[in-house]
Amino acid sequence: MQKADGMNYAPTGGGKPVVEKGAFPVAAVGLDHGHIYGMCNGLAAAGAEIRWAWDPDPARVEQFVKTYPEARPARSKQEVLQDPEVRLVASACVPADRGPLGCEVLAHGKDYFADKAPMTTLEQLAAARAQVAATGRKFAVYYSERLHTECSIYAGNLIAEGAIGRVLQVIGLGPHRLNAPSRPAWFFERERYGGILIDIGSHQIEQFLFFAGAGDAQVVSARTANYNHKQYPELEDFGDASLTADNGATNYFRVDWFTPDGLGAWGDGRCFILGTEGYIEMRKYLDIGRDPESDQLYLVNGREEKRIATHGTVGFPFFGELILDCLEGTERAMTQEHTFKAAELCLLAQAQAVQVE
Amino acid sequence: MQKADGMNYAPTGGGKPVVEKGAFPVAAVGLDHGHIYGMCNGLAAAGAEIRWAWDPDPARVEQFVKTYPEARPARSKQEVLQDPEVRLVASACVPADRGPLGCEVLAHGKDYFADKAPMTTLEQLAAARAQVAATGRKFAVYYSERLHTECSIYAGNLIAEGAIGRVLQVIGLGPHRLNAPSRPAWFFERERYGGILIDIGSHQIEQFLFFAGAGDAQVVSARTANYNHKQYPELEDFGDASLTADNGATNYFRVDWFTPDGLGAWGDGRCFILGTEGYIEMRKYLDIGRDPESDQLYLVNGREEKRIATHGTVGFPFFGELILDCLEGTERAMTQEHTFKAAELCLLAQAQAVQVE
Repeated sequence: MQKADGMNYAPTGGGKPVVEKGAFPVAAVGLDHGHIYGMCNGLAAAGAEIRWAWDPDPARVEQFVKTYPEARPARSKQEVLQDPEVRLVASACVPADRGPLGCEVLAHGKDYFADKAPMTTLEQLAAARAQVAATGRKFAVYYSERLHTECSIYAGNLIAEGAIGRVLQVIGLGPHRLNAPSRPAWFFERERYGGILIDIGSHQIEQFLFFAGAGDAQVVSARTANYNHKQYPELEDFGDASLTADNGATNYFRVDWFTPDGLGAWGDGRCFILGTEGYIEMRKYLDIGRDPESDQLYLVNGREEKRIATHGTVGFPFFGELILDCLEGTERAMTQEHTFKAAELCLLAQAQAVQVE
Repeated sequence: MQKADGMNYAPTGGGKPVVEKGAFPVAAVGLDHGHIYGMCNGLAAAGAEIRWAWDPDPARVEQFVKTYPEARPARSKQEVLQDPEVRLVASACVPADRGPLGCEVLAHGKDYFADKAPMTTLEQLAAARAQVAATGRKFAVYYSERLHTECSIYAGNLIAEGAIGRVLQVIGLGPHRLNAPSRPAWFFERERYGGILIDIGSHQIEQFLFFAGAGDAQVVSARTANYNHKQYPELEDFGDASLTADNGATNYFRVDWFTPDGLGAWGDGRCFILGTEGYIEMRKYLDIGRDPESDQLYLVNGREEKRIATHGTVGFPFFGELILDCLEGTERAMTQEHTFKAAELCLLAQAQAVQVE
């Protein structure tokens, strides 16, 4: 039995409304990646009203409004952007288009919530930073592999409580199932998806900065490869990188498209967090050969080894915090600088990656 | 409950004699590291006669001959080296002394079996290579974390059968328990132990070359730190490195001295081997939070996720092969070039490591 692939992974629940019904209308613009469902599930569970859906492809809009019956198909992107009641626009359009769309959304006085990775070039990042400065609006990003996995939320809480002391290192493994026949054309076009360290590496760098409590980092080394999919010459099926944070913590991550068909999930996502007083391992989407349940967290400290089944425990506070941040101008969910720093480091890692084969 | 620390980890059994009793007399010279017990257990199980023990410290000799009653305390190192019947000298002396001792042993027409890491300088390596060339004798190394763990032997067999296709990457995690009060002075002296990437990194690089079927590799990046043990200024409590092999396979490994006291083993050694057709994970010394038994292997391929308890299955063929190699001039156990290449890459990784803190 296979669970949905990463593109269609859309957790539900795990939130409670932070606003009255109708107080936070949002629109979904650009439905290219299935993450839009996870994004809207999170927003809706936190009380957002999914008011509009727009995409150039009517079939995608039709599918979307079946899932969110309160959403209306918009006649154009402009209809959405010109609705003064819409507070936030969420988008999972093609990666290369996410940054420019964000600038357009902010120019209309709305907040923006992009699927990861939010940009594919440093120029797009500079433009987004400038637009945030000019408008005072938010450019948020759906780093789902941390924000939408309960074990990651749980791990963040443990670290904040000092459960493993000072965080010295974060290792992330982010394998994904390729499922090539299900993929759209842009998935195989380098300029459109950005490269593997940008596309799926973005999760990894964000979680490193977060768990290490770091403000910035240097990319020490990075590699990419197309080891085994030469029929897609612009695909990178493997990437990895090492980073050193400004606070001395180190990071290594690997991302790839080699999830075998026999795995009971789209990827055996792991994260190891080494601290001075203990360590945490997360088995995010299943516990191979042991347990198909997601969000298994292992904590080893000075006293014990402990397995914690975190599914159904802490939920996904990000979405409610994001809504409140938009309404109140706060930065509970994630700071703008952290959001952009993770994006920047992906771009830098991708740019300096050495190709292997 | 804690199992013995790494220094006293000495697997037993897992071999069958390959020679008649008395046909392969060996001597243990230099008992500084507890690995000498694992080395001699392996040799004895494969039929070697443990004839002599020598160490400057009589207490260590006394302890040794209690474990191997057939062994006689030698009056001097020379007594051992001048016994014409001794075929091989095994040593777990201080790392900085292992290379020079090996050259001396080879000069006496005997084969040599050093604990890892076998050298601490490139000069020692060059001397050892020259001595092997001059004498035709063997300079073998006890890379125990692969050679003396059944899951690693099992994994090697799986890879040879094509179970995961082409090996693209090996990730190794080699945490160790520090247990500082039990450590001798040399453990904290950089010139004597060599540095963390040499000392415990040597296992990691050897297993990478082996599992990837690689002849050589480049060190892409390396880091070391003394994050949390400033009272031992020459200790490195953290190290990591990335390598790219001549066949395109990539490697990352981390080694550290942060095993928490609550872990039921001296280290949560892991190895992830990514192939084009599947992947293998080894949990070498225990399966945290699930199972205290060592040598758990997980295989995921196109059909299934499979957990394989490898303890008691394949044994440790290295020792018998080494004995036969010594007697017959073959290279079944490990080629001399592979032995030295792993040592060389550790030295290079250590030399180019960037210090973090």
